[in-house]
Amino acid sequence: MARTKTRRASGGREARLAARRAPLTEAIKPVHPGLSGGRYKPLSDGDVDKIWEAAFELLETVGMADAIPHCIDLVTKAGGTLTDDGRLLFPEKLLNWTLEVAAKEFTLYGFDPKYDLSISDERVYFSTAGAAVLYLDPKTRKYRDTTLADLYNMARLAHHMEHIHTFRRTMVPREFKSARELDLNTAYACLAGTTKHISASFFSPDHVDDVVEMFDMVLGEKGAFAKRPFLSGANTVVVPPLRFAQDTCEGLVAQVRHNMPMDVLSAGQAGATTPAPLAGALACGLAEAFATLCFVNLMKPGHKVFLAVWPFVSDLRTGAMSGGSGEEAVLEAASAQIINARGLPSSVAAGMTDSKMPDAQAGYEKGVTVALAAQAGANLICESASMLASLLGTCNEMMVIDNDMLGSIARGVRGIEVNTETLSVQAIRETVHGPAHFLGHPQTLARMQSDYLYPEVAERLDPSNWADLGSLDMTEKASLEVERILAMEKLVHIPADVHNDICKKFPIHLKL
Amino acid sequence: MARTKTRRASGGREARLAARRAPLTEAIKPVHPGLSGGRYKPLSDGDVDKIWEAAFELLETVGMADAIPHCIDLVTKAGGTLTDDGRLLFPEKLLNWTLEVAAKEFTLYGFDPKYDLSISDERVYFSTAGAAVLYLDPKTRKYRDTTLADLYNMARLAHHMEHIHTFRRTMVPREFKSARELDLNTAYACLAGTTKHISASFFSPDHVDDVVEMFDMVLGEKGAFAKRPFLSGANTVVVPPLRFAQDTCEGLVAQVRHNMPMDVLSAGQAGATTPAPLAGALACGLAEAFATLCFVNLMKPGHKVFLAVWPFVSDLRTGAMSGGSGEEAVLEAASAQIINARGLPSSVAAGMTDSKMPDAQAGYEKGVTVALAAQAGANLICESASMLASLLGTCNEMMVIDNDMLGSIARGVRGIEVNTETLSVQAIRETVHGPAHFLGHPQTLARMQSDYLYPEVAERLDPSNWADLGSLDMTEKASLEVERILAMEKLVHIPADVHNDICKKFPIHLKL
Repeated sequence: MARTKTRRASGGREARLAARRAPLTEAIKPVHPGLSGGRYKPLSDGDVDKIWEAAFELLETVGMADAIPHCIDLVTKAGGTLTDDGRLLFPEKLLNWTLEVAAKEFTLYGFDPKYDLSISDERVYFSTAGAAVLYLDPKTRKYRDTTLADLYNMARLAHHMEHIHTFRRTMVPREFKSARELDLNTAYACLAGTTKHISASFFSPDHVDDVVEMFDMVLGEKGAFAKRPFLSGANTVVVPPLRFAQDTCEGLVAQVRHNMPMDVLSAGQAGATTPAPLAGALACGLAEAFATLCFVNLMKPGHKVFLAVWPFVSDLRTGAMSGGSGEEAVLEAASAQIINARGLPSSVAAGMTDSKMPDAQAGYEKGVTVALAAQAGANLICESASMLASLLGTCNEMMVIDNDMLGSIARGVRGIEVNTETLSVQAIRETVHGPAHFLGHPQTLARMQSDYLYPEVAERLDPSNWADLGSLDMTEKASLEVERILAMEKLVHIPADVHNDICKKFPIHLKL
Repeated sequence: MARTKTRRASGGREARLAARRAPLTEAIKPVHPGLSGGRYKPLSDGDVDKIWEAAFELLETVGMADAIPHCIDLVTKAGGTLTDDGRLLFPEKLLNWTLEVAAKEFTLYGFDPKYDLSISDERVYFSTAGAAVLYLDPKTRKYRDTTLADLYNMARLAHHMEHIHTFRRTMVPREFKSARELDLNTAYACLAGTTKHISASFFSPDHVDDVVEMFDMVLGEKGAFAKRPFLSGANTVVVPPLRFAQDTCEGLVAQVRHNMPMDVLSAGQAGATTPAPLAGALACGLAEAFATLCFVNLMKPGHKVFLAVWPFVSDLRTGAMSGGSGEEAVLEAASAQIINARGLPSSVAAGMTDSKMPDAQAGYEKGVTVALAAQAGANLICESASMLASLLGTCNEMMVIDNDMLGSIARGVRGIEVNTETLSVQAIRETVHGPAHFLGHPQTLARMQSDYLYPEVAERLDPSNWADLGSLDMTEKASLEVERILAMEKLVHIPADVHNDICKKFPIHLKL
């Protein structure tokens, strides 16, 4: 068959460009929130069982120190024991009961219901998270203290990032003198910036009450938050090895009372606060988080909880935390596998980097750690956007870059559909005996929208066109995107009068 | 137990620093070449079977165009058919025979036996590869034509990269007028730069003969190369869909004659030269590469061959190749799984990026694609270091960065050992009732060497120390490492007189 060069170039390409110009409907989008992972299994089933057995043995025979009275009361009534040296032992029967009654699936609400997330099985969602105290300006390579305005801007930015599904606070604004001001302003800035599900931490149970009262004001009705709790508590519940963090545990009580979903989080550092062998770090962290899950379920069976075992890695030469290593990648993926293996919702940390800049190191450390956690089926992948410097730092450009990365990883999680149509034997037969290429094939036009994800910022030009457009690197392109988004109109889901009322009643410093 | 702060800080840390100062023996190293992957299975077993069935159906009923006479002769004698329109059909019996007799495991020799690689099962090795025509200076952000000196330097650099196990030529030096000069100088520069296994392509079977003759001269004995062939042929054997590349197929005949291992490589572009649905791209590529594997085994049953199905992705808006996408990541991992599922050695492409710079995009695209290919158990992960710009470009700094990335990914592939000792129940018990941290625990000292990999260049300083040392990004640090390595003494495995003899006999332009 004779073909002219013109026909070949224009016929397929123009149709394809036109097709891509039309906005994609939700149904046809190549990726969507909550794709199913679980195809990567870092551990054998037998090894998963061994780690659960070790965690249970620790809780039965070594137990947890520093339990709060309410926890001691509930656990001992359920058959537990307080030892003479103050350690709370959990009987096997209670642990198995917890496995049975703990929530296996639930809805994580957005302020806007269109951002509701259905948590179950090995469905994967990406969340920010972090307690950065430094903010990077990548142009000057300078770090400075984080501020409330930084946090609000980052929440606004996250609102527009398609592949970031929940916004947990990424930083600790540094300008506040009291913990109450910090907690209240943090939670409020998260809500003001996005109508996706948000998450924050609390230094004291009173702050939980305050935040819920503020949010009820926004919703216009006392008790409204508890009906659709759109904020979850991020609770570092232990001081490893095997010791409860008492203040945080008091906060759990308040969160349960307000029907607030939560992470119960153990974040040991292997070789420092948990054992250096990776299996031991997992067993220790699992025991700690599970002890807390047990306590929460004794307060309220089936409360919405993510079991969050985040085994952090130290650089054992210096003891410093290292978030971007290969050890970290396999540990967090294994954590998800272990938790999901008992049907429990898993929260892990991936997307950390030890780099101080949004550079190639940051890219690969994030890419490797998030790809493995996502393929392992982690339900909530925290720390997955914007974080730098082993969690000490954060930056808007990094978030925009990470969003493209998360989309690409989600596309991998979606996997490959294999059926008679996709195997394309007939299409190949036609093409071999026809045009000898697939550019104009109807299959190509259809699949380019449903099967291929196009990044927002990442570069695909050839070197010559790239040079013509200024030879920008990814960080520079991300800066332009940050500017574009932050110049957009702000969300108006908090009416001005409500905002003023809240500022009168609570020490809120945020300007909307 | 009372502890002073001094004891605590010095006791653990100094011992750990001292331990790390000692060079690691091979046995204790946390990663080594050929770790076992296969824990990530992008496809179900049933889907793997379906793709094999589709590939066989294509070969049985659509067949391959443009087979060379030698191939037609062998295949028709084995029951195949040449159709009236010149397509060679492969009978099922011949395809199954190929599955049976094809090499399942073999040694890939280095020039130096210490770099010999044992190829089998799901053992993972990293290789460079590429046909870049542009070299990037990341300081000026300028691309220029690649040269023979660039290739030689890159081979020298790769020699010192611990996690790069074979050096396939990364670029096509641009200064040569004839294909013969290009092929001979390329292969010779690879050998001159490293004593690891090397790999190159050939425009003509004569060039294979020439290169083997040169290498026999280096080894000092005619026929020596064939005894321990340390170079393998990289052969793009098809022009998809389902058409042999005749010149390349002639080269296979020469390579088999010289006992040269080889990749038989299908590199279609989904949506352009292979179907847009990912499953169809895999089926088409598998059919093509397998047809070639069949031909090679008809020449010499059990010849050392990597089945190389590299399904490339196009950006379907423009038709341009895109190497760093999520689709690419899952395709290459699936390719490894499919090939390994029949026990055949797999070669895939991962570590490509569409970025023009060694930036965050390059980092995450490489991290995601290589991590998934490695966890899937790809035997030879080509393109895994130094490549940029959708394979059009390459750069030394990128290779140094990628080496750290590959180490980290290898650490993830090694996984987590779970046994009574690593589960650490006893160590946790002792620690809880003792120092309450693991810094000085004997387990920590032992495991910091055997279980934790420390990167060569990647940054782990805190922001303040990093600023004190000049606020370098990963590319700048890599530049220093490139300079350091290229200033080292060159290898002397090619004696000067032999080099001179070779230069007299062949058009070799390399200065050693």
